[in-house]
Amino acid sequence: MTPSKTFKQKLAHIIFDYNTVPAKMFDLFLIAAIIVSVIVVMLDSVPGIHAAYGGFLYGLEWFFTVIFTVEYGMRLYVASNRPRYVTSFFGIIDLISILPTYFSIFFPGTQYLLVIRFFRVLRIFRLLKLVKFVKEGEYVRNAMVASSRKILFFLFFVLVTVSIIGALLYLIEGEEHGFHSIPEGVYWAIVTITTVGYGDILPQTVPGRALAAMLMIIGYSVIAVPTGIVSAEMASMNQQLHTDLSRIGTCCKTIDHDDDARFCKECGKPLG
Amino acid sequence: MTPSKTFKQKLAHIIFDYNTVPAKMFDLFLIAAIIVSVIVVMLDSVPGIHAAYGGFLYGLEWFFTVIFTVEYGMRLYVASNRPRYVTSFFGIIDLISILPTYFSIFFPGTQYLLVIRFFRVLRIFRLLKLVKFVKEGEYVRNAMVASSRKILFFLFFVLVTVSIIGALLYLIEGEEHGFHSIPEGVYWAIVTITTVGYGDILPQTVPGRALAAMLMIIGYSVIAVPTGIVSAEMASMNQQLHTDLSRIGTCCKTIDHDDDARFCKECGKPLG
Amino acid sequence: MTPSKTFKQKLAHIIFDYNTVPAKMFDLFLIAAIIVSVIVVMLDSVPGIHAAYGGFLYGLEWFFTVIFTVEYGMRLYVASNRPRYVTSFFGIIDLISILPTYFSIFFPGTQYLLVIRFFRVLRIFRLLKLVKFVKEGEYVRNAMVASSRKILFFLFFVLVTVSIIGALLYLIEGEEHGFHSIPEGVYWAIVTITTVGYGDILPQTVPGRALAAMLMIIGYSVIAVPTGIVSAEMASMNQQLHTDLSRIGTCCKTIDHDDDARFCKECGKPLG
Amino acid sequence: MTPSKTFKQKLAHIIFDYNTVPAKMFDLFLIAAIIVSVIVVMLDSVPGIHAAYGGFLYGLEWFFTVIFTVEYGMRLYVASNRPRYVTSFFGIIDLISILPTYFSIFFPGTQYLLVIRFFRVLRIFRLLKLVKFVKEGEYVRNAMVASSRKILFFLFFVLVTVSIIGALLYLIEGEEHGFHSIPEGVYWAIVTITTVGYGDILPQTVPGRALAAMLMIIGYSVIAVPTGIVSAEMASMNQQLHTDLSRIGTCCKTIDHDDDARFCKECGKPLG
Repeated sequence: MTPSKTFKQKLAHIIFDYNTVPAKMFDLFLIAAIIVSVIVVMLDSVPGIHAAYGGFLYGLEWFFTVIFTVEYGMRLYVASNRPRYVTSFFGIIDLISILPTYFSIFFPGTQYLLVIRFFRVLRIFRLLKLVKFVKEGEYVRNAMVASSRKILFFLFFVLVTVSIIGALLYLIEGEEHGFHSIPEGVYWAIVTITTVGYGDILPQTVPGRALAAMLMIIGYSVIAVPTGIVSAEMASMNQQLHTDLSRIGTCCKTIDHDDDARFCKECGKPLG
Repeated sequence: MTPSKTFKQKLAHIIFDYNTVPAKMFDLFLIAAIIVSVIVVMLDSVPGIHAAYGGFLYGLEWFFTVIFTVEYGMRLYVASNRPRYVTSFFGIIDLISILPTYFSIFFPGTQYLLVIRFFRVLRIFRLLKLVKFVKEGEYVRNAMVASSRKILFFLFFVLVTVSIIGALLYLIEGEEHGFHSIPEGVYWAIVTITTVGYGDILPQTVPGRALAAMLMIIGYSVIAVPTGIVSAEMASMNQQLHTDLSRIGTCCKTIDHDDDARFCKECGKPLG
Repeated sequence: MTPSKTFKQKLAHIIFDYNTVPAKMFDLFLIAAIIVSVIVVMLDSVPGIHAAYGGFLYGLEWFFTVIFTVEYGMRLYVASNRPRYVTSFFGIIDLISILPTYFSIFFPGTQYLLVIRFFRVLRIFRLLKLVKFVKEGEYVRNAMVASSRKILFFLFFVLVTVSIIGALLYLIEGEEHGFHSIPEGVYWAIVTITTVGYGDILPQTVPGRALAAMLMIIGYSVIAVPTGIVSAEMASMNQQLHTDLSRIGTCCKTIDHDDDARFCKECGKPLG
Repeated sequence: MTPSKTFKQKLAHIIFDYNTVPAKMFDLFLIAAIIVSVIVVMLDSVPGIHAAYGGFLYGLEWFFTVIFTVEYGMRLYVASNRPRYVTSFFGIIDLISILPTYFSIFFPGTQYLLVIRFFRVLRIFRLLKLVKFVKEGEYVRNAMVASSRKILFFLFFVLVTVSIIGALLYLIEGEEHGFHSIPEGVYWAIVTITTVGYGDILPQTVPGRALAAMLMIIGYSVIAVPTGIVSAEMASMNQQLHTDLSRIGTCCKTIDHDDDARFCKECGKPLG
């Protein structure tokens, strides 16, 4: 609020806010850089493109890595609470999205891990002022967290089922039909129960196929369980979501009020 | 209402209404023409049929294109608001369902795009007076629009997951196992997470298969999320739908009252 | 109730009731005959078994066909309303489950259609006095009927999508990659959107794979729509079901009261 | 409660309780032993590992079997109600998880059935005091039991559908296209309707593919039914779950009160 800000305050404003033109420009440039850098990593892995433009893409990769390193340094510099930023979700993503390029000097190949940079695109939601969007991500996450124990229980049941049926198929089909070990049988059972069905490992005997058919029917029926869990959770979340969203935008559309706010921070109108 | 209508008014009545015999005949003929023209395009692409009846089917294609061109011209001529028709959903479909035949004179092969005509079959709902049917399509669309932001968030999560796991499998499996580039790895990851599982690209190493199994389990569990979102949305929509549909057909079954109607436009009975 | 019944009345009692020992024996024998006859038809189609026991199985087939013909005759004879039985669900199934054996005299091969007999196993629910079971089948059916218009709308959307994308892949991939015609492209698109993914027809170009990936993501997201529709319908049905089932079995467990009954027909207690 | 316990009482305390250090140590050791023994069985089946470490793993297998046999004996010894323990879920699992090793002396190969030991990991929930977790497993089970009759009805419908379409494809495609018998056709139909889609058996004629496409669409639409059933059941269960869980932990967080308890057994506060 004071007219003369320090350099650090100005920088913090550009990096963390999103209301002014320089802050918007910074965010837009950042998003573009992130998306282009991910595409560069992907294209560089295509043999034909690598042969033709490998040097150019390698240069681009270092260009983006330097940009992101500078950005990481700036965020570290202006952060009011450095340890908190470093250990935050975006802090960790920001760091591991630049490390692979440096690692690739010593360990060739690791630069492909740069696709982790894709996570950085999540910053786009912040740029677009999609406050509701972030809220919705939060609700989806909340619904998943609320259901996670039930889903873990369900996954445990699936794990036990595929272990036992995978072992049985190894016994029934044996190595001559491509089941070389119990872990391979379990892999086949996972491919089958999830209805992926590659077809690289296949039961060929009558009891093996009967068991496989049983596993498919189980997988087909059992998919109902996590869906039911999440649906029921979402249904009750949905009500809460509508209640919560009614707090946003009644007076000043673009503003997300704090959860404990009783009045709009822009116009002073009381909130519902 | 006036007994002596102009030619344009009569034509508009035949094309846009569906209560009189000539209007019904026009709609019926149109639906038949649309369905037959789509089948003609499909059959013409089968080599055996093309060799035997290619000339005949080519003639039919031009026959239907001329009919649809005349129809498009008529709709343009009688439309009370021409720009609105041209930019409406059906206006655009009507136009792009005739263009490919003309384009095919200059660019051979584009006539197969005529299957876009299939969209025109949507007009059938109007003919069959399935007013409720259209309403239901609207509700399905509304439920999807209401959930679309959450589903986009979910798809973004899927996109990030397949990018990272696709890149990892490219690193682990390498070219000798069919993973020639990161984009190909991402394609494989999409084929796997959606449980399609073609089996043309396959992980063959132990860590690759472990990661693939993880991806399958994620795909299998995560399908619960959009289903939960849409189910919860539908459940609340369902109530609204029952309320809205109670406005239709209490007195005059075949009539769809306007949303703001307070009395039946046929018999004058008040609406609930 | 009269002590001296006619032969027809006694027969009707055995065939249509399920409270006395002879009626139960008749039903039990019938269910066993149906299941064994279906298994006979299935086994007879296995080359190894056919070679070894073909004659014996052929004899069994005729044995069961004669039994079911006699049963059909008896049902026709004792039916109080013959045209109604002949046109009822079970009347039609009873007839077409005996016809194939007779047809097979003139048209070899049609005897395999005898698996239609499997539908007759539905009679088992009647035998086991699973009155509630039948009720539940009815509710499942009601929920599907109530949602059928929305699901048809959804299937129409799927049909249009697979037609257009199937045609596009025919254009992009062409015959050299196994897409010999638009109908084959549409078949591939159905295999893909439903996540079956056989892998016999495969996109191999970059734009073809991009479009295929899009189709998979659509199929994966869009499965949420019918599930949401049926879930929402079931949720409202569920309440009605609990209310309805509360009418059954409060006093005399095995009895299903008529919908308009106000008192139990066995003990006279008032129903809730 | 008496200060001087008998040896049997002390042993029962260690085995069945989970509040004291020795009881916790016992449970932790047991869980570790169970997980390691399952991994041993799996690894022993991998040819390369078996060749190198077969003898060592065989020794480990017997080591764990002896431990579990001693544990089973102890449980039998201290059980207050022996027949009840022997016939309980864990009693049966405890027994059949040690039998295969003994059987393998006489019937080589049966030791792979030791993966049944995986079920024993369910004891982990008891160790971790995840009382709520067990409750949730119970609720998932209750929801599945409550929906089981409807799901059985649905599976019966699926069974009839795959039998009829499997038989039809055997008739249409015949042996030259890989459909060697009706049971093989039914296996193909199950692989298709569950959207697994291995691609080992494939329709190749036009009517066969048309029927297959129909079956896929059925499978794709029909998956909505069990999901709808379970979702609706879960939604009503969810409310009950929240009510029931409110009884846990209001005063003493780690305690699970008996269903009929009216006061907390630790602090005496009345329960809601």
